[in-house]
Amino acid sequence: MLETVDLSLELDKQTYKSALPGLQDRLRGAQNLALQHGIPVIVVFEGWDAAGKGENIALLTEKLDPRHFRVHAIGAPKPEEAGRPFLWRFWRRLPPRGDIALFDRSWYGRVLVERVDGLTAEEEWTRGYDEIGQFERQLTDDGALIVKLWLQISRKEQKKRLKKLDEDPTLTWKVTHEDWVRHRKQYDDYAEAIEEMLAKTSTTAAPWTIVEAEDDRYAAVKIHETIIRAIEDAARARGGDGGHGDPGPGGDGAHGNPGPGGDGAAVADAAPDRTATTEPIARKSALLERLDMSVTLPREEYDEILRPLQAELRDLQGRAHDQEVPVLIVYEGWDASGKGGNIKRLTRFLDPRGYSVTAYAAPTSEEKRHHYLWRFWRDIPAGGELAIFDRSWYGRVLVERVEGFCTEREWRRAYQEINEFEGQLAAAGMVLIKFWLHITQEEQLRRFQSRAGDKFRHWKLTDEDWRNREKFSLYQDAVLDMLERTSTAWAPWTVVEANDKPFARVKALRTTIAAIEAAVGGNGKKSGGKKKKKKRKK
Amino acid sequence: MLETVDLSLELDKQTYKSALPGLQDRLRGAQNLALQHGIPVIVVFEGWDAAGKGENIALLTEKLDPRHFRVHAIGAPKPEEAGRPFLWRFWRRLPPRGDIALFDRSWYGRVLVERVDGLTAEEEWTRGYDEIGQFERQLTDDGALIVKLWLQISRKEQKKRLKKLDEDPTLTWKVTHEDWVRHRKQYDDYAEAIEEMLAKTSTTAAPWTIVEAEDDRYAAVKIHETIIRAIEDAARARGGDGGHGDPGPGGDGAHGNPGPGGDGAAVADAAPDRTATTEPIARKSALLERLDMSVTLPREEYDEILRPLQAELRDLQGRAHDQEVPVLIVYEGWDASGKGGNIKRLTRFLDPRGYSVTAYAAPTSEEKRHHYLWRFWRDIPAGGELAIFDRSWYGRVLVERVEGFCTEREWRRAYQEINEFEGQLAAAGMVLIKFWLHITQEEQLRRFQSRAGDKFRHWKLTDEDWRNREKFSLYQDAVLDMLERTSTAWAPWTVVEANDKPFARVKALRTTIAAIEAAVGGNGKKSGGKKKKKKRKK
Repeated sequence: MLETVDLSLELDKQTYKSALPGLQDRLRGAQNLALQHGIPVIVVFEGWDAAGKGENIALLTEKLDPRHFRVHAIGAPKPEEAGRPFLWRFWRRLPPRGDIALFDRSWYGRVLVERVDGLTAEEEWTRGYDEIGQFERQLTDDGALIVKLWLQISRKEQKKRLKKLDEDPTLTWKVTHEDWVRHRKQYDDYAEAIEEMLAKTSTTAAPWTIVEAEDDRYAAVKIHETIIRAIEDAARARGGDGGHGDPGPGGDGAHGNPGPGGDGAAVADAAPDRTATTEPIARKSALLERLDMSVTLPREEYDEILRPLQAELRDLQGRAHDQEVPVLIVYEGWDASGKGGNIKRLTRFLDPRGYSVTAYAAPTSEEKRHHYLWRFWRDIPAGGELAIFDRSWYGRVLVERVEGFCTEREWRRAYQEINEFEGQLAAAGMVLIKFWLHITQEEQLRRFQSRAGDKFRHWKLTDEDWRNREKFSLYQDAVLDMLERTSTAWAPWTVVEANDKPFARVKALRTTIAAIEAAVGGNGKKSGGKKKKKKRKK
Repeated sequence: MLETVDLSLELDKQTYKSALPGLQDRLRGAQNLALQHGIPVIVVFEGWDAAGKGENIALLTEKLDPRHFRVHAIGAPKPEEAGRPFLWRFWRRLPPRGDIALFDRSWYGRVLVERVDGLTAEEEWTRGYDEIGQFERQLTDDGALIVKLWLQISRKEQKKRLKKLDEDPTLTWKVTHEDWVRHRKQYDDYAEAIEEMLAKTSTTAAPWTIVEAEDDRYAAVKIHETIIRAIEDAARARGGDGGHGDPGPGGDGAHGNPGPGGDGAAVADAAPDRTATTEPIARKSALLERLDMSVTLPREEYDEILRPLQAELRDLQGRAHDQEVPVLIVYEGWDASGKGGNIKRLTRFLDPRGYSVTAYAAPTSEEKRHHYLWRFWRDIPAGGELAIFDRSWYGRVLVERVEGFCTEREWRRAYQEINEFEGQLAAAGMVLIKFWLHITQEEQLRRFQSRAGDKFRHWKLTDEDWRNREKFSLYQDAVLDMLERTSTAWAPWTVVEANDKPFARVKALRTTIAAIEAAVGGNGKKSGGKKKKKKRKK
């Protein structure tokens, strides 16, 4: 998930200075709301060393009512704590209903530092995932709000910060030998553990929010806005139900009439009234807009490398078949982004007995009678088969979300369901490749117009395409959420710059070759497909 | 959990003959309800070989509309199935909305036969728990009803049945060599795997129902009633919301207004209107009534063995202290069952620096501002400490349930929460001992009257005691549910026959000694505490 985080996001000083006081006031107001509705608020700060956890907590609490929040800095367990189940010390620090607890590091140490530094046996920290899941579910079921923030900085930025602290005689105490060891020797181990943690513990009721923390101002604003929004949503979900202090019958609105309030699911899922919320200052990652959409592949070069790549893929198909490795390639992308042509080039030389292409449109009436994942489960490839899905389960968080074909509760739940689904496929040994074919709005318009004017291709352009275009910004939101929330270590997205079709086709081919090769092993031949192997994780 | 199952339950032929046709009709009606509300119904049959799964499925389907149910007999995966994620073949067999699928064995094979027979690597079947949890949650979140039945017979009964089948020339094909191997050599391994499976996968949304299956008639009736009740409850939870076929907006009632219907939580938790349901024929386990409540310990014997037992416990306390093993003893029981006196005898010779007794009454106002487990988490003993809780978290499923101090949704959820909590304690190495002090209603009355007439002890008797007595049958239901649903391999209940106080005190002492000894090792001395070591798991 972290690979799609746009760390270049920043906020200018002017905007920041004028926004901060207002945000702090709104946070103070949110604190009141929590108190009024009796919502215990738990804010978890995790992140790389020197990512700014302490500074942000200081900033957050400046204007809060000190009687109703508490900060817990979590270090190594004390002897009395080490002798008890690892969650004991966190249960003790939970806020009463209405109060806010801010955790500077948390129970996630179990699956991070304790895991990577080998402080805890593998059997114990793997069980930690179960215990953390139970812990958070029990709390959110009981009406608690859990906001989990991961402060992300790059390795380079971390080095810069550690060095700066180290060189300052008044701050050098903040940097320990362990910090440097972690930075120099364990960075990759941590990165792997973090990816797994984010994927395994990002539940619907207690999701992680990734904070792009290279720019202090951007991070501060995003953190404020995330917490404010979460509390306001939770309070709104409680509706007129004031106070949660008395756990008597009906006290939480869940008795008899399972209406809003009282349980975590409702809190997390109640449709927030977006119009009532101020437009956030910390905007979403401009990931897609920042792609270099001008890249092209000259025709001659394309003609020269296409066939060798196709041949290499054919060869890999054979090896995957022999080794019984299943391969699943998912194509998603804007209308007119060139999925069909791209797939055609990919499959050009494949052995037709061993691959299949399935295009998914709206579910049939039979399919509608099943879980939305059912038809995709049905079609997954067996060992040795290569399947290409033209559109996929991502329809749930794209078209179904934007067009209202499913409820907000349903599409919000889907990110976790999809990550679980793909995790099960990957665990079973499947090579999973996911393409997002990206084109600019201008290029899309050009292609639409060209189709409209072409008597052989105008059938490809429907009124619906034009309607979708009108909803561009809604779709863009959905695409960004999708890329951010479903790019996992085991099933990363590859965003393909597709304004230039030859470029897009070659990138898809090379990515596919690299991914299959990583699973079945190379053949030692030098070929066009190897040069850009690193591209895959872009 | 299985140790508390009362396998002597049976139903006479007459009652059975007259009840079955009605039950089959009601099941047919329930099938209609499912169809009408678009609820996909998934019934899982698991159980020991020869426990009667096939026979019961045949009986169940006799009057069902064959167009809307399907039976899936699950054996070893076929080659095409083995090459895919293990859940693939079950996804394919899921019923469409409104239909019923009956699984004769199921995905639980992953953590039973595949585990015990070593067909699957440990890494894979342990991950199976995660995958099963995700699978069932995704389905129930989507509105499916999952009824999971475990058919329980004793080892002896199993032998009898296998033999009988084997000796019948027309049926001997039903008994394979593997059945006998499982019975003779792997019985204990299976028993352990089953206990773990039941505990880990009995969730609020998809709980297991244990079917006492030694008596065919009793089992058949209980199975019918369980399925009928589950479908009727689910349909009631959907309310007027007919049909789930179209997943459009508002189609499941969850959009905007998170009212009843549409999600599994609501289905599982909606308060069933008990008065509308026919009184079940298959009654609950009469476990408590079947105890031999006339047992006594003669005064002389009591006087003779009490002190050696107390001394032995003192010795074990020391060893637990040295080995830093935490011990937690929970006392629950009827009013006037003698908890206080029992605890006094248990602690008589303990080192006061190393033990503590905490009595829990109604939560304070501070405690009410927290999760109900919070105050118990706070007080759990550290390594080497011995803590006695006079009443405990079980208040949630006893007094809070009966008196309506929490919602039905809350106490139903609590069984799982409690099993998870105790699982976390046990995993951290805690010795957990749970006593239910049982007295008959007559004995309780005698004690109440004796207290009322005693000027030094009449304060011990309050109006509330009399009121609780009036709710005896409600409390009895709650106690039986509690014993059945929270007696786990890691934290079994010990029911103490407490009409005779000396007997009860000695049993508690012996049970405690045996449990601590099992954790810290014996000292080799022969003493009074060892004789009845086996009592613990009674």
